Amino acid sequence: MSTEPELRRDPVTGRWAIVAPQRALRPMALSDAGPRHRSADERTPCPFCAGQEYDTPNEVFAFRDTGSEPNGPGWRLRVVPNKFPAVRRDAEPATPAAYSTELGAGRGALFCSAPAVGAAEVLIDCPEHIDNPTQLSDEQFRDVLRAYRERLVALATDASLEYVAVFKNVGAEAGASLGHTHSQLIALPIVPELIQAELTGALAHFTHTRRCIFCDLIQNELALGARLVARSDNFVAVTAFAPRFAYEMWVLPLAHQPRYESITNGAALELAQLLKRVLKALDESRHSPAYNWYLHTTPLRAGELAHYHWHLEVIPRTARPAGLEWGGGCHITTAAPERAASELRAALPASG
Amino acid sequence: MSTEPELRRDPVTGRWAIVAPQRALRPMALSDAGPRHRSADERTPCPFCAGQEYDTPNEVFAFRDTGSEPNGPGWRLRVVPNKFPAVRRDAEPATPAAYSTELGAGRGALFCSAPAVGAAEVLIDCPEHIDNPTQLSDEQFRDVLRAYRERLVALATDASLEYVAVFKNVGAEAGASLGHTHSQLIALPIVPELIQAELTGALAHFTHTRRCIFCDLIQNELALGARLVARSDNFVAVTAFAPRFAYEMWVLPLAHQPRYESITNGAALELAQLLKRVLKALDESRHSPAYNWYLHTTPLRAGELAHYHWHLEVIPRTARPAGLEWGGGCHITTAAPERAASELRAALPASG
Repeated sequence: MSTEPELRRDPVTGRWAIVAPQRALRPMALSDAGPRHRSADERTPCPFCAGQEYDTPNEVFAFRDTGSEPNGPGWRLRVVPNKFPAVRRDAEPATPAAYSTELGAGRGALFCSAPAVGAAEVLIDCPEHIDNPTQLSDEQFRDVLRAYRERLVALATDASLEYVAVFKNVGAEAGASLGHTHSQLIALPIVPELIQAELTGALAHFTHTRRCIFCDLIQNELALGARLVARSDNFVAVTAFAPRFAYEMWVLPLAHQPRYESITNGAALELAQLLKRVLKALDESRHSPAYNWYLHTTPLRAGELAHYHWHLEVIPRTARPAGLEWGGGCHITTAAPERAASELRAALPASG
Repeated sequence: MSTEPELRRDPVTGRWAIVAPQRALRPMALSDAGPRHRSADERTPCPFCAGQEYDTPNEVFAFRDTGSEPNGPGWRLRVVPNKFPAVRRDAEPATPAAYSTELGAGRGALFCSAPAVGAAEVLIDCPEHIDNPTQLSDEQFRDVLRAYRERLVALATDASLEYVAVFKNVGAEAGASLGHTHSQLIALPIVPELIQAELTGALAHFTHTRRCIFCDLIQNELALGARLVARSDNFVAVTAFAPRFAYEMWVLPLAHQPRYESITNGAALELAQLLKRVLKALDESRHSPAYNWYLHTTPLRAGELAHYHWHLEVIPRTARPAGLEWGGGCHITTAAPERAASELRAALPASG
């Protein structure tokens, strides 16, 4: 049996999944004890620390001091291929039709699979061994957000790719396998199901109103105030109205921006400052829970959409999904988003 | 702010979520240590054990010895309202339009919520304090499956309900809060999103082929054999082709049956025996992982569908979903379903 990663389409719903046997080999340095990993295993050097560059595959991107050499010291942020990738850069893609999500007539065979072509990269946020992104300086945090943009732009040149999923797992409960703060991206020849669901819903709203649903949502949230966590000149953070996890937050640019690629360095700094504040509030009010954040942005080939608006979702792992969640996709949370927002506002550090 | 449970619709995707502040009060008797809870906390008596009937709300259904009184001893299986319900039986439902999932024009306000009317019940599998459903006798296990049917039939008489989600959480990692083996149901005025996605996909297949997609899937799996775990005269267990979790299994009746309500007592016994075997194989090959199972069946008001086929899904919590899963809905697993099936087959106990 092949051990190459495969994309497989669920015969009934059309949902794509990745089967990647090689990922089973990755080391899990984070222990399960405690809500979040707090210190490195002292016995093995952290492969993401300065001086350990030989422990990772060769970098594909970095912010570096002038004159420093790739894969040596002198970097501020490094992007390297994932050593245990769920997708393969060197695989031969199938025809575009093989990656279709169409149901029924256009779908072809019941059991559809195709090589999981794509890119899996790790963005090492900083050379120092810190495990909490709020400990990054504003400039380091900005550079993380700039690196997201740079990788999106670079990967868009690969015609076999349709979407770049960019995310961060903080803490073992959130799926992180190493404590040193880092982000990840997985570039795929498909558009993930939840992004597609947002695009579909947003288009339905636009067709009816000629307005972007996220722009409408922002205006409503600003007017209402009950779910507002924090805002800056150009960004806003709110708790989600119908969350999957308690304290789930959405962070959006106030102006209509379909694609994350358009973020400027100045806006990235402002977003970094806002994110640091709301993440510190989350740490403070929920005792540093494990969490994920992930970027929702327009698919690579979809142009400038009037109906879609990039945003970043932060979901703390405040509960364990059980039968209704996995069986039905319907999530139960126990903290009202309005109460969560009020708690988070109270826990915000002073500005600046 | 109200503490009554609410159904809330995500403004962008239309996905329903339940916000139930009262659920925060429920006790969590299961510790996080170990893959699965194995023994009761000795300090507090288990509310699900024989003799502790006063510790639960009054039963709504039971299999009892002749002449025994409700809420006293003499029961073999009891169904009681959940003491910490995510939905409320006594709430006044909103108009049916309030529970619509339509996007765009028909949707109305951006932020839609409605009272979370419904029923939340706990099905206590047996009076003995055992925590592994495979330790139930064949007859006890059959009675669990009979009780699912009885509650579906009874709750269908409540015109405000559209779907009854029946599931079991085994182990703390799977969301169980008490070790004593039990199932749960949550009856809702909506059809959960994943069931709706299956209905949509199944209808698309039927429109094209005039065949039930699950019937086609069964024929293909039986012919192929690679994902076959076990079969009996009338049921089959396979590993899912595009799983969300490694070792995910689907158990289906071989004949076309849209509604679980049609299961006979004899078929329930046969299904119980098959499930016990495949769950023992899972325990054996994966060191007794936490898992959920949940019943997928036709919504209460949808009649007898030619395109839908009830089945039971078993998902072991073999990994922690991270950024791509929660951000994109795209799951990565590291064990090929064909290898998982082969391991499970090798771990099956002898028949009968």
